[in-house]
Amino acid sequence: MPLDPHTLLEKFRAVRAQTEALVAPLSAEDMLVQSMPDASPAKWHLAHTTWFFEEFVLARFDPTYRVRDPRWRVLFNSYYEAVGPRHPRPARGVLSRPALSEVEEWRRTVDAQMIARLPRLGEVAAQVAQLGVHHEQQHQELVLSDALHALSCNPLEPAYAAAHALGAPARSMDAATLPFPWIAFEERVAWFGHRGDGFAFDNEGPAHRALVGPFLIAGRPVTNGEYARFVEDGGYRRVDLWLSDGWAAARAGGWQAPLYWERDAPLPAGGTLEGWSAFTLYGRRPLDGDAPVGHVSFFEADAYARWAGARLPTETEWELAAGDASPDGNFVESKRLLPAAGPVEGADTKPRQLFGDVWEWTSSAYLPYPRFRPLDGALGEYNGKFMSGQMVLRGGSCWSPRDHLRATYRNFFPPSARWQMTGFRLARDA
Amino acid sequence: MPLDPHTLLEKFRAVRAQTEALVAPLSAEDMLVQSMPDASPAKWHLAHTTWFFEEFVLARFDPTYRVRDPRWRVLFNSYYEAVGPRHPRPARGVLSRPALSEVEEWRRTVDAQMIARLPRLGEVAAQVAQLGVHHEQQHQELVLSDALHALSCNPLEPAYAAAHALGAPARSMDAATLPFPWIAFEERVAWFGHRGDGFAFDNEGPAHRALVGPFLIAGRPVTNGEYARFVEDGGYRRVDLWLSDGWAAARAGGWQAPLYWERDAPLPAGGTLEGWSAFTLYGRRPLDGDAPVGHVSFFEADAYARWAGARLPTETEWELAAGDASPDGNFVESKRLLPAAGPVEGADTKPRQLFGDVWEWTSSAYLPYPRFRPLDGALGEYNGKFMSGQMVLRGGSCWSPRDHLRATYRNFFPPSARWQMTGFRLARDA
Amino acid sequence: MPLDPHTLLEKFRAVRAQTEALVAPLSAEDMLVQSMPDASPAKWHLAHTTWFFEEFVLARFDPTYRVRDPRWRVLFNSYYEAVGPRHPRPARGVLSRPALSEVEEWRRTVDAQMIARLPRLGEVAAQVAQLGVHHEQQHQELVLSDALHALSCNPLEPAYAAAHALGAPARSMDAATLPFPWIAFEERVAWFGHRGDGFAFDNEGPAHRALVGPFLIAGRPVTNGEYARFVEDGGYRRVDLWLSDGWAAARAGGWQAPLYWERDAPLPAGGTLEGWSAFTLYGRRPLDGDAPVGHVSFFEADAYARWAGARLPTETEWELAAGDASPDGNFVESKRLLPAAGPVEGADTKPRQLFGDVWEWTSSAYLPYPRFRPLDGALGEYNGKFMSGQMVLRGGSCWSPRDHLRATYRNFFPPSARWQMTGFRLARDA
Amino acid sequence: MPLDPHTLLEKFRAVRAQTEALVAPLSAEDMLVQSMPDASPAKWHLAHTTWFFEEFVLARFDPTYRVRDPRWRVLFNSYYEAVGPRHPRPARGVLSRPALSEVEEWRRTVDAQMIARLPRLGEVAAQVAQLGVHHEQQHQELVLSDALHALSCNPLEPAYAAAHALGAPARSMDAATLPFPWIAFEERVAWFGHRGDGFAFDNEGPAHRALVGPFLIAGRPVTNGEYARFVEDGGYRRVDLWLSDGWAAARAGGWQAPLYWERDAPLPAGGTLEGWSAFTLYGRRPLDGDAPVGHVSFFEADAYARWAGARLPTETEWELAAGDASPDGNFVESKRLLPAAGPVEGADTKPRQLFGDVWEWTSSAYLPYPRFRPLDGALGEYNGKFMSGQMVLRGGSCWSPRDHLRATYRNFFPPSARWQMTGFRLARDA
Repeated sequence: MPLDPHTLLEKFRAVRAQTEALVAPLSAEDMLVQSMPDASPAKWHLAHTTWFFEEFVLARFDPTYRVRDPRWRVLFNSYYEAVGPRHPRPARGVLSRPALSEVEEWRRTVDAQMIARLPRLGEVAAQVAQLGVHHEQQHQELVLSDALHALSCNPLEPAYAAAHALGAPARSMDAATLPFPWIAFEERVAWFGHRGDGFAFDNEGPAHRALVGPFLIAGRPVTNGEYARFVEDGGYRRVDLWLSDGWAAARAGGWQAPLYWERDAPLPAGGTLEGWSAFTLYGRRPLDGDAPVGHVSFFEADAYARWAGARLPTETEWELAAGDASPDGNFVESKRLLPAAGPVEGADTKPRQLFGDVWEWTSSAYLPYPRFRPLDGALGEYNGKFMSGQMVLRGGSCWSPRDHLRATYRNFFPPSARWQMTGFRLARDA
Repeated sequence: MPLDPHTLLEKFRAVRAQTEALVAPLSAEDMLVQSMPDASPAKWHLAHTTWFFEEFVLARFDPTYRVRDPRWRVLFNSYYEAVGPRHPRPARGVLSRPALSEVEEWRRTVDAQMIARLPRLGEVAAQVAQLGVHHEQQHQELVLSDALHALSCNPLEPAYAAAHALGAPARSMDAATLPFPWIAFEERVAWFGHRGDGFAFDNEGPAHRALVGPFLIAGRPVTNGEYARFVEDGGYRRVDLWLSDGWAAARAGGWQAPLYWERDAPLPAGGTLEGWSAFTLYGRRPLDGDAPVGHVSFFEADAYARWAGARLPTETEWELAAGDASPDGNFVESKRLLPAAGPVEGADTKPRQLFGDVWEWTSSAYLPYPRFRPLDGALGEYNGKFMSGQMVLRGGSCWSPRDHLRATYRNFFPPSARWQMTGFRLARDA
Repeated sequence: MPLDPHTLLEKFRAVRAQTEALVAPLSAEDMLVQSMPDASPAKWHLAHTTWFFEEFVLARFDPTYRVRDPRWRVLFNSYYEAVGPRHPRPARGVLSRPALSEVEEWRRTVDAQMIARLPRLGEVAAQVAQLGVHHEQQHQELVLSDALHALSCNPLEPAYAAAHALGAPARSMDAATLPFPWIAFEERVAWFGHRGDGFAFDNEGPAHRALVGPFLIAGRPVTNGEYARFVEDGGYRRVDLWLSDGWAAARAGGWQAPLYWERDAPLPAGGTLEGWSAFTLYGRRPLDGDAPVGHVSFFEADAYARWAGARLPTETEWELAAGDASPDGNFVESKRLLPAAGPVEGADTKPRQLFGDVWEWTSSAYLPYPRFRPLDGALGEYNGKFMSGQMVLRGGSCWSPRDHLRATYRNFFPPSARWQMTGFRLARDA
Repeated sequence: MPLDPHTLLEKFRAVRAQTEALVAPLSAEDMLVQSMPDASPAKWHLAHTTWFFEEFVLARFDPTYRVRDPRWRVLFNSYYEAVGPRHPRPARGVLSRPALSEVEEWRRTVDAQMIARLPRLGEVAAQVAQLGVHHEQQHQELVLSDALHALSCNPLEPAYAAAHALGAPARSMDAATLPFPWIAFEERVAWFGHRGDGFAFDNEGPAHRALVGPFLIAGRPVTNGEYARFVEDGGYRRVDLWLSDGWAAARAGGWQAPLYWERDAPLPAGGTLEGWSAFTLYGRRPLDGDAPVGHVSFFEADAYARWAGARLPTETEWELAAGDASPDGNFVESKRLLPAAGPVEGADTKPRQLFGDVWEWTSSAYLPYPRFRPLDGALGEYNGKFMSGQMVLRGGSCWSPRDHLRATYRNFFPPSARWQMTGFRLARDA
């Protein structure tokens, strides 16, 4: 079914505006900071997402379009080898030019051109434009995670914004008072991966069947309070709990707790949250024991699970839990969970907080699905070439745009990455 | 069924003798060389495998046993955190003391003590001793791969031995004249992993069912001649063929061909093996176009497969192809292939050269099987803690002891490792 | 003789204003860029020089003074261990806060406070304030060298300013047409180091006698044209011309010519400047063959000298040669400072371009003079602790404030540093 | 005056035999160990010193000579770029071939050829042979320092030999009971550097005059007991005592005391040698408080001197103190000190322990003397190309061959080097 240009452009406008709303609290100086090679300046994100539409839609499908500056292709191409040379990623912070004002003006120009030209560029261009919209939504989350990291490197600990400017953060729940909620799944052969008409990235398909289970999965993510007990039990000093690579990463990085956690006093004997704080987009805050733990690596999640006598779910287990497996194995129910992005009826049988709190590490390596085919051309580099050395995360975080998430979404990061809003839920063998 | 002490000690004797036969061509100086952190000196292998029996069998199960020197626990403990501190791995080459003669004398003492004491130490000790025997067989292959690497770093390019001292190397076949042999498998749910009474490592179990296929798998590994065409077609310069991490590894390492390959002249236009040679245990030799390619990383295997319009098999596909799934899912046929370690009847329907030529990279990350439980105690570190960042290899090489291999065996190395005897076979979607 | 507060504050005002004039062409974004650990953002220079007056004058000598923000001591302390902890030098580029506007406001406040309070803080405070003025002049040159480096890392190659905004650059002369000017000095015992009432850094004293000569020194620095012949003669490929550490640095850095030089075509056979350009504060410009070569390391200067059959002067030779101020020599004060060093006869035998073109590498390691005593307290760290691993440069560059230079001035940088305006003149044994 | 071939060959024989005596306590395995890139295996030293005679004497001056193996030129050339490519220095430990026995046989052959052919090769060849003899004496000391380092990296801490096998170590003296001996020198212009007929390295010349003094120099080196008080006073934690590069080196290396020192208990409050031991060629030994401290870097010597309110001597001060300046400035007396290598008459006016205890760091950077000319050809690389980034040491250690030392000898190492037998004596301004 061809894309409706009007609907697509509505979403385009909304997403572009949302990106600009996200950077509004940042100054031009803030938007230039690159605090580590894995992170990018906010201005670069603004420019790169604009370059995406100029390069892959306007310039590719409309021979009359003139690019803003051919040299900017080098500056704002992220990793597309087929497009040509790229400015070195770790040196994005030196790009004081083009100025923020020039990038903003470029955004406006490209937006206007997209709106004017897209309707007559055909279905393939529309498909790429749709990809560009979802691509920009991915960068919206990166804008926040990279900004938090940049601000955290400043001893002044400036806040990105006043509290809760982004709406509700990861929500707390009655974790301390209820019994831990395990949900059981029987062994079955089910369908996994994306099917149907809606948008999905190439790495979510093709849909395929797999045998899963039986297993138990936790009804909610692990909380700060639970994780603090692991810390206070010496979890970061007990080598037997860690994968070998994880232990090496923890030693090399001096990890003592999740990224951004700090104590203002030595660990008490009793195990308590008192004294713990975390640096957030809203400045340094006391730790909320009932909120899901964030900013942990796969290695920390895995060590916690071992400490707790459990394990992480596989991505198929997670996907099964997130949807309702219909008799023929198709996901018909997964969308039901999305609008509420939180509590559902039937607390004992449905997992909660799957979407919109923290990205959840799974125990699955990021590998191609059976019969995976990357997109044609340069856009084939979007996902496929990174299928090595990374782990899959599922769900979505409080920083993710809500209409960007789905049960089949495969996020991925190296197992040592901590600067995203990443947490986890537990699983067990049935 | 309890292990028969007599049979076990027979195998113990044979394996220990075989290790010593393998190092016989090496001088005391050769046996001290450590040419990179990942490799170990042959003397260290001799000592470590002896420490394994002293530490985990004699000292653990016999309170009257006195260890040779308590400080040697530090020197020859490889990675068992639970046993205590360890001499740094990259500094094994400084251990001129204990002298080779002392290590040899220690081996003889430990052998005598094992033979004298094992029969009365009970079943658990026997199980550990059996593990020690298979552990030593793993080190036999490492002795050869590490020695080849060490010799290759010497500009004199000394040979480990006269040609074919180890028996037949990877055997050639009529690769050039026959059509490429694809073997088809239907979709099925089958059992995977080890079952039954024979020995297996903990990472081979538990047996479990999975849904696999349909797929095609190559009847034989990719040969030197085939791989040379990839090299000569610019395979190492075409970024579109490589995973992103693979391209980075190839750039950083200056890869132009498999490890140990060299040309004495620029690449000819036509594509030919002329001018290619490879450094082997028998010195530098002209490349045998019909032998399986070896000393390639996972990244190279993956790039070749993409160039060839194919892919690597998953480890379940490989295991399915290697065995015959019986009605109840157990492997009853896989052993049939092993004695011959080569051609079998029914050339059109059975894959060849699965065991005894090259370890074969699969597309599967090295992860725990469902319900995996590591061994108790320090030996739990044997396999489980390495289940991150590595890829599974299946089969076995011309350097592997023949009675050490099985269809369920899961070897694993980082995707950039090249110094083992590692090749690959192709697979395709059906 | 006590400092006159009025004169001192006049100079204070002028220097502070000059710093602000120097950054006027830069945007807030430009002023945040840190392109390498050795360089600092312009905003950081603005803040650090302000911190210097607040920390060492206002807060130290006036108990009623309240610092702007105690946390800024950490941010803008460069290397004074005695003052307390410091923000890591390589991470100065993350300091988007305080904003440029806050730093500018701080400068105005500190300026006003200095003007209001200094007259009653006493002679020692005035001495430190005088040091602060000269310290800020040093940073004025760093603002330019660091800005040039930052701009050079941007593929857009933005210009700091329109041509010659800073006044005359390194001046050209009739290098091509005149015979190379060697000036002879007899052996003598002379006084070296600073004497008299004027300001000097602690490392310029105490004055002391040394035996120098006989020697010949070049009448002018080596020019771009002369250096280009070295490049074109294969100077960067001839290991015999280089110190061992220099060769290693050149290999590691991929040096093919001075920093910022580029060719748009392969080297011609004949040896010509055609095709060479250099990136400057005014953008990329054709190379001026008659201007002194700049942006070379000590290692390159040393290799050039060996290629030319000459050597670099020692710092005592240079100082002796500089002591003769010719009427047009831009340095009318040197006679007064160096009465014992003795003028030589004749206008044709006077060295030119000693001050205001390029800093000139000498063959002298940066070591303390006999009886050297660093300043008391934290300011003792100003110079003395860096007397290891660096080489002395003399003179001053076209970026140096003219009233900042003297014949006894000892600048110093590691022998591999290239981002300063550094050149050299030759010397020979007589 | 031409060299007398008979005398030269006598010394050649004696030095060659002495090298072999020095390695006699080491096994073939010991002789292969390379414990860090700066150190070399003893076998490599045996081979390199042999290569020196083959390359620079036999092959160069006798067209009928056939080299043992042309490939060994690559293996055993240390750093002579003009001779051709070299095996990478950090990889000397992989050279298990040629075997030690082959290297020993090569030494015998080259020795016989030298003895047979040298008398008819002429004066220039004899000069080079003489250089080769002194070169081998330098390597004799390196054999010991490198062997000590290699053995120190083995947790077994094996001893090179039983105590005092090398004769007296650094001798103790009545340091604790006598007042500290300062010796005064007046200001004077004196001659420095080597003059006369005896052998000297190129870097010791040409002789030249310099103005020195007045100054005081210590009558003996700093002892272990004195240095221990610096350690116990927190000398390694007081940043104000250190050069900036020195502090960085101490932090990076985790320095807490001289190399090879260890405590078996925490530092006592009182300051005492109890509990300190040092690893030596004779195994781990209690620290001798009256022996000169060894295995300290320049940075540690410099920090100690600052702590003690003194400084290190310059190399000219040291040389002046070591010799008797005759009326015309020539050294006529310096040899007088050498035969005794220790106490001289007139204890109050003559410095003691200048030669044969520890190499003494000076405050002088290793730079060329005025009018320095390196040797012609490849041997010009012997010394000159290292005149950057290193500091001069004077005197000689208990490991130095006694007939190898002279007052003009300029040893040099990077300021952070600690594995040589390096100590220091203090100086002060008069």
